[in-house]
Amino acid sequence: MKLSISTEEIAQRQQRLITKLQEEKLDCAILFSVTDIFYLTNFHFRPSERPICLLIDPKQETHLFVPMLEKEHAQEYAQVNHVHAYPEYPGLRHPMEYLKDILHENGYEGRKIGLDASGYSSAKGYRGPSIDQLLTAKSFDSIFGWVEEMRFIKSAAEIELIQESCRWGNLAHRLLQKYSKAGLSEIEITSRASNEATMAMIETLGSDYKPHGKTAYAIFRGQVGPMSAFPHAVTQNIVLKKGDTLVTGAAGDVWGYHSELERTMFVEEVSKEQEKYFNLMYEAQEVAFRAIKPGEPTSAVEQAVQQFWVDNGVQQLTSHHTGHAIGLLGHEAPFFDLGDDTVMQPGMVFTVEPGLYVRGLGGFRHSDTVAVTETGMTMLTYYPRDLESLIC
Amino acid sequence: MKLSISTEEIAQRQQRLITKLQEEKLDCAILFSVTDIFYLTNFHFRPSERPICLLIDPKQETHLFVPMLEKEHAQEYAQVNHVHAYPEYPGLRHPMEYLKDILHENGYEGRKIGLDASGYSSAKGYRGPSIDQLLTAKSFDSIFGWVEEMRFIKSAAEIELIQESCRWGNLAHRLLQKYSKAGLSEIEITSRASNEATMAMIETLGSDYKPHGKTAYAIFRGQVGPMSAFPHAVTQNIVLKKGDTLVTGAAGDVWGYHSELERTMFVEEVSKEQEKYFNLMYEAQEVAFRAIKPGEPTSAVEQAVQQFWVDNGVQQLTSHHTGHAIGLLGHEAPFFDLGDDTVMQPGMVFTVEPGLYVRGLGGFRHSDTVAVTETGMTMLTYYPRDLESLIC
Repeated sequence: MKLSISTEEIAQRQQRLITKLQEEKLDCAILFSVTDIFYLTNFHFRPSERPICLLIDPKQETHLFVPMLEKEHAQEYAQVNHVHAYPEYPGLRHPMEYLKDILHENGYEGRKIGLDASGYSSAKGYRGPSIDQLLTAKSFDSIFGWVEEMRFIKSAAEIELIQESCRWGNLAHRLLQKYSKAGLSEIEITSRASNEATMAMIETLGSDYKPHGKTAYAIFRGQVGPMSAFPHAVTQNIVLKKGDTLVTGAAGDVWGYHSELERTMFVEEVSKEQEKYFNLMYEAQEVAFRAIKPGEPTSAVEQAVQQFWVDNGVQQLTSHHTGHAIGLLGHEAPFFDLGDDTVMQPGMVFTVEPGLYVRGLGGFRHSDTVAVTETGMTMLTYYPRDLESLIC
Repeated sequence: MKLSISTEEIAQRQQRLITKLQEEKLDCAILFSVTDIFYLTNFHFRPSERPICLLIDPKQETHLFVPMLEKEHAQEYAQVNHVHAYPEYPGLRHPMEYLKDILHENGYEGRKIGLDASGYSSAKGYRGPSIDQLLTAKSFDSIFGWVEEMRFIKSAAEIELIQESCRWGNLAHRLLQKYSKAGLSEIEITSRASNEATMAMIETLGSDYKPHGKTAYAIFRGQVGPMSAFPHAVTQNIVLKKGDTLVTGAAGDVWGYHSELERTMFVEEVSKEQEKYFNLMYEAQEVAFRAIKPGEPTSAVEQAVQQFWVDNGVQQLTSHHTGHAIGLLGHEAPFFDLGDDTVMQPGMVFTVEPGLYVRGLGGFRHSDTVAVTETGMTMLTYYPRDLESLIC
């Protein structure tokens, strides 16, 4: 398989956006979203104080606007008609002054312009004018969310990349379980598992593999023993003890695509109480799997899970919804949430992760990554889910 | 030393913001910036689809607004008068409807309200109303950048945390250099160095240490051999060869504070050409160090370095400015840049990293973290900078 998105698919994505601009009677567009720019051009970058944007001009040609530092990188990777570079931010002349010239030269003046944001923004010290201060337009219209919605439904190639991510998460998790022993500390275990999985991943995939995020990893994030009851605990290098409940996480970025594999595990032995909550969590995940169907709203999945919690009298032990979409970002819309009525469609990819949190005892949550199909869903993660397989 | 910011210092930060609100005749404020909320409350969180904000109400009491998932965490860590939790995003009732109630109950209606953003925003699937759709005010005024500017000048405690970060970066880099040998691959070397440094860091600092970002690490990011000529190369697990130019990076997060240590190293031997560019880079960094003085604009540092490049006929081999401020973010304003005339003041912390990039040969860049003092500057990083010490 290819470990990237093909030029044909990138061209189709651009064409879909251009078609939508035409349908909405917009002449041209300016996009600032880092994720959407990668989705539309295959150009991956770490945002900084230096502004970057993508233009679709009135002739439907594409332009990437980057700092000099990124110019060669953009020329090599970005699937666009033109790359424009400015010297530096803030510079003697502000980058947006260079952009203004480019907009003028490419016929943006007096047009109906679609914008995904009013201008570039960054927490890293950027200041600059909004687009409407750079030129006069017939109108400025928000196209915020358009590309995000295109990203809701994954192509076959995208699902393959997510599956490839699942494979390396599976290996990292297998090693994590193998090395999880009472008396060893969180970081000893996760470092060893993550490094071995990363080496295997990189040596297996070879030079086709370009990490745009984390290579293979498996972690506890401090969710060890009673601390596992806090869904957002942080790594503290806790030493594992017999009887601990563990909540894990494992994945590996492939061409910017994410997956999510989480398991509830136990060190050596399981108490009756741990088994009880494990079984409820396990069943809740099954309830969710059964509720995932094309044509139904995502809220139906959450309703089914919440009904299950209520029927079993444990609704007070929950603290988050059942899952979220996943792809180029670790969390994406839509959500398995009472308030989200997005209709499920084949190609949508979600995490399924109903959780119970019992103070003093631990957290109980598996997370699997699944794709909606024509008839229901298919699991992309495939690590064992049953109790017996998860005692280490 | 303490590995956190004291409650007294947090109270002083809040008081400074309250004083500024009063000076600007604003009655109350709403802040959404993740970094600024941590700076003002010691509450650290990973932003997601679930909105979070900080309120300073007309009675000057502070409120943190969080999802249920973060409630206990906020109650334990956040230095605020009140914590309010909403069930979930998007939820049957939108989180901003809960916020609306809290704003009404705390006297925001009809007031002069300071906002650091028009509302919550997130790339992770969030949608919601802006604050001006929730209530009527006497005025909505932007306070964007106020807290960021407070963060320009670091306190003694902040500089100590950055120094602590430098220490663990130093260890990670020492191990990186020790393990860098021809025939070994990038990830073998960086994994071993990063893991050993992380273990030493965590076992030395003990339970006082709470990572809010990366623990100790040392990396090449693909800047190995000719690839080091690309300042934004990515990890590709290149095998080191005799004669390679390497550009490294090492640090370790301490209570959210960053530092930056980068070195140009060579595998076993150095050619005359490599030595020439190394020496120019080394001298350029010295030029920058000498130009750092309180009372001078940050642009003066860039001017001095650019003059040095021009005098030596290598200005065409540069592609970025000389440095940036650093603290809670890896890149912060102000910048050592021709277009930045911020006046340097004691307590500002910067990276100093002039670089030369020679196609086919490699990149030449050290980065050191320095603090501006009453009379000039002091180095916070302390790894050897000379050529002889950097041949591995």
